[in-house]
Order: sequence, then C-alpha cells, then structure tokens
Amino acid sequence: MTKPAVVLLSGGLDSATVLAIAKGMGFDCYALSFDYGQRHDAELRAAEKIADIFGVKDHKRIHLGLDAIGGSALTDRRIAVPDQLQEGVIPVTYVPARNTVFLALALGWAEVLNATDIFIGVNAVDYSGYPDCRPAFIEAFERLADQATKAGVEGARFKIHSPLMDCSKADIIRKGLELGVDYGLTVSCYAADREGLACRVCDACRLRLQGFEEASVPDPTRYQS
Amino acid sequence: MTKPAVVLLSGGLDSATVLAIAKGMGFDCYALSFDYGQRHDAELRAAEKIADIFGVKDHKRIHLGLDAIGGSALTDRRIAVPDQLQEGVIPVTYVPARNTVFLALALGWAEVLNATDIFIGVNAVDYSGYPDCRPAFIEAFERLADQATKAGVEGARFKIHSPLMDCSKADIIRKGLELGVDYGLTVSCYAADREGLACRVCDACRLRLQGFEEASVPDPTRYQS
Repeated sequence: MTKPAVVLLSGGLDSATVLAIAKGMGFDCYALSFDYGQRHDAELRAAEKIADIFGVKDHKRIHLGLDAIGGSALTDRRIAVPDQLQEGVIPVTYVPARNTVFLALALGWAEVLNATDIFIGVNAVDYSGYPDCRPAFIEAFERLADQATKAGVEGARFKIHSPLMDCSKADIIRKGLELGVDYGLTVSCYAADREGLACRVCDACRLRLQGFEEASVPDPTRYQS
Repeated sequence: MTKPAVVLLSGGLDSATVLAIAKGMGFDCYALSFDYGQRHDAELRAAEKIADIFGVKDHKRIHLGLDAIGGSALTDRRIAVPDQLQEGVIPVTYVPARNTVFLALALGWAEVLNATDIFIGVNAVDYSGYPDCRPAFIEAFERLADQATKAGVEGARFKIHSPLMDCSKADIIRKGLELGVDYGLTVSCYAADREGLACRVCDACRLRLQGFEEASVPDPTRYQS
C-alpha cells in the first residue's frame, strides 16, 4: 500500500518540482493550494493543470484571507512589487508567517488523511532573506506537528520534506525536467497578467530566468512581451 | 508605551476571559477572529461586541476555508455534534490542527504589528482530549515562532500566553467576573441558533452550565427554551 502525503502546490516552478519528486518517491499525493489574496490567480489555474498531469488523488484549494493582516506586497495592493532584491533585507514580497500558515493547514489535512508526510518547496538558497525558508524553521515545525496532532501524541513522527532546500534554481530545473515537469505550465511571476504571462522583471522572474540560463536549457516561460 | 498583543477571540466564554486578562495586564490588544465554516456565526457577532466593550485597538476577522479539509463536526455538516463527551476519546468536534492554524495566523499579524505576545484561551482541564490544548503544544509553538519570524531570527522571544491552561470552567468564570466580563454576551454552544441562543445539551453547553453552577453564580446564558 502506498503512503499518502500532502504536497503544497502553488503552481510555481518550485512546488511543481516538489510534486514530481513526491510522486517519484511513490507517495499518493494530495495537493493543497491556497487562494490567499494573491495579486492574480493565474498561479492557481497553473496548480490545477499540474495536479491533473501528475495524477494527484485529490487537490484542494483553501480560501485564506491573508490580505486582512497585510504587511506584504503580495497581499496588499498598496505595497509595490520591487524589481530588485536587496542583499540582507527581507523583501516586501515576504508574507508574514506564510509558510507557518500553509504548513499548519497542510497538517490539518494530513490529520484527516492519516498522513504523516508533508512536502513543501522552500529553498534557502534563493530566498535566504525569508526566515520561514530555513532548515531550523522546518525542524521546529516537525517538532510542533508531533505535539499538535492526535497521531503525534500517539507516537507518530511527522516529516516535513523540503527536497529543494539546498538547491539552486538551476538544480531544481534540472531535477524537474528529469521527472517530466513541463515548466511552460508553471507561473512564478509576482505580477503575472490574467493569462499567466510573466513580467520578466520582478524578483521571481529574474531568479527563474537565471535558473534556465544556468541550467543551459530553453526557458519555456510565456512572457508578456 | 504599552506593548501590543494579538488575542485570539472566538466570542466564547474562554476567549472573552483571555481578552479581559490581556487588557488587565496592560497590553494594547489586537483581537483576531476566524470565520472558518463554523455552523453559525452568532459566535462571531459576539466576538465583535466583546472586542468593542474591551476597547481593542483593532479587530480583524479572517476568512479561512477549513471546511475544505473536513474531519470535524464543527466544519462538516455531515458529522453530527454529539451530546456527550467520551472519556479518553478525541471528540468529533475537534478541528484538525485548528489551534496550530489559528496561532500561525496570529503570528503573521503579530509580525506586522511588531508584537511578540499572543494570547489564546486553551484549557487542558476541560479539553484534555484535544492535543493542541496542552502545555507541550504551546511550548513547541513558541519555539517555532522564534524560528518562523524576522523578529525571532533577530533574537526576540515570542510568548504564547495561555492563562486558562490549568483553570476549571468555574475558575475561568470567577476570574472573568472580577475583570468585568459580561458572559451574557458570549456564545459557547456548538449548535447555537441564528440569534445565538444556546442548545443547553451539547458538550460546550454542559461544561459551561456546570461552570456557573460550580462557581455559584447565576448563569446569564440565553437558551433556546
């Protein structure tokens, strides 16, 4: 019998790769996406296509009013999305406690499914400015999950898989291509238009573009111009 | 200058008491409520009144689609709310990972407010069957918060206050009355009607009723009959 796993799936490049990895490891995948007041929902439509292609057992989309607390360019329209990352500064695209919230909801679904494996596409290389993209955060969440759930209290040990933690964007792309990910379907851009076409200039676009260059593979991203 | 604190406020007896305690400790209180697919919203209207009375700095209500993951009588209408607690069994009114999700969102707002204090009305006495109502859970969340946030990474230590942890319902009621809580405004019932009138028979009603009896004070709860 295969084991169930909850996979956080945003519709971006990283999480699509993570789904392919979880599938490759033999898990029955349950994909979880969030509608959290992002600037566009092209990413969510991408998540649906990717979930379909990888034959997930179920794909849920949870509405989450993160815009109510604000504090990020991704959820507050009054804060502009910057074109450039600043060294050593947490970007305004950081959504306060986002990965904590996402993992908490994944944990809730995992309890319902009797799953103890959760996959998340965090990455300490490209986003070293985000506190919730570091190994120490993931380990603290695993210890929390063991205390927060019936299964954990009864002795189960939760595993938060973050297989991209130490990968460069180029590493991620190479790994995904081996596993059959069609990156043309994924949307990473913070300012994608309604059709999911990318802006080419935001942080996310630049990191992605650079990744395809470094991996020496053609960039299948659909750009606005 | 007073310190800001995020207070989880459901509109029930426990969280109203916690707000009164936080206020009494001198915190500037920011109340946070969730609309998470509960069976009724009488509790949320109660939260609004209580937040007003205690002069909170702000009160936010976050929509949270917990019904998508199901697994609880409180969010899934196909699961009946039971009349009686079973010894040693986690009740079907347990919402998977609920307090983890609530604290995660409180943490996000705390980051935006530069607050490191969060209040939650969990109680290990009446709800010993809920894994996320125990001191070990609260401590694990504090350690997570220190790793999950910019403030924590920079050396701040988060405090999750759970002042009701070791209190009986009667203790809570006595404490709240001293601090001026009007329990007639609070709604605890799992099956309250549209006007917030309580059923008198669900777990929550029975614990509450017993609390007023043990505290030897009149029960101001408005019942359906």
